[in-house]
Amino acid sequence: MAFRELIERLVQEVPGAVNCTLLGFDGIAIDSVDGKSTLGLSAGDATIEFAHLVGQIRRAAEGLAAGNVDEVCIRSEKLVTLLRPLTSEYLVALTMLPGGLVAKGRYLLRTTAPKLLQELS
Amino acid sequence: MAFRELIERLVQEVPGAVNCTLLGFDGIAIDSVDGKSTLGLSAGDATIEFAHLVGQIRRAAEGLAAGNVDEVCIRSEKLVTLLRPLTSEYLVALTMLPGGLVAKGRYLLRTTAPKLLQELS
Repeated sequence: MAFRELIERLVQEVPGAVNCTLLGFDGIAIDSVDGKSTLGLSAGDATIEFAHLVGQIRRAAEGLAAGNVDEVCIRSEKLVTLLRPLTSEYLVALTMLPGGLVAKGRYLLRTTAPKLLQELS
Repeated sequence: MAFRELIERLVQEVPGAVNCTLLGFDGIAIDSVDGKSTLGLSAGDATIEFAHLVGQIRRAAEGLAAGNVDEVCIRSEKLVTLLRPLTSEYLVALTMLPGGLVAKGRYLLRTTAPKLLQELS
């Protein structure tokens, strides 16, 4: 399955999903899919801003021997963003409404990550 | 209850808790309590590094009109760190082992936050 289909399925299967983006730590999106839910702001923009910060978190964690960062979750008033590093260059981000099924999002993001990784390599 | 007691209780009541720290976004700790679980690395150091990055995440979220950041969760190989902003200056961080009761940690951090806020003001 191509990565477009994988991120489309994530957005469809998670109630309250606003956007799923596959992107580089440099903030450049490879592909991005919007969900049915809307936010009144660009979830893609949020993802790109946060991706850069996740890169810094990763480096901080490595410097502390805390090991690889598996996931970062940012809960704000209007959105919940889950960010999952795939490689040293790429990550996948799923943005949901705060009332969305975040646990399902986490689960699907974790199980989809190896498939995305396969498509990237 | 003084904030020392509040963060002590958090560490005691969350299985797998390694450390709880009340600190500024500048990374300077007001108070820090270690749990029974150990990590082979300083959880306090991780907290301080991450606090600085949470400050950046907050500013990014505000710039995007995503609203106030309520919580940031960083899951790495060896630790899970929950960071919760209290004011524009201070936040509280709870670090757990990955096998710890993160959901209980989230709940107690959320319910303890207003009490910490009261102590700070």
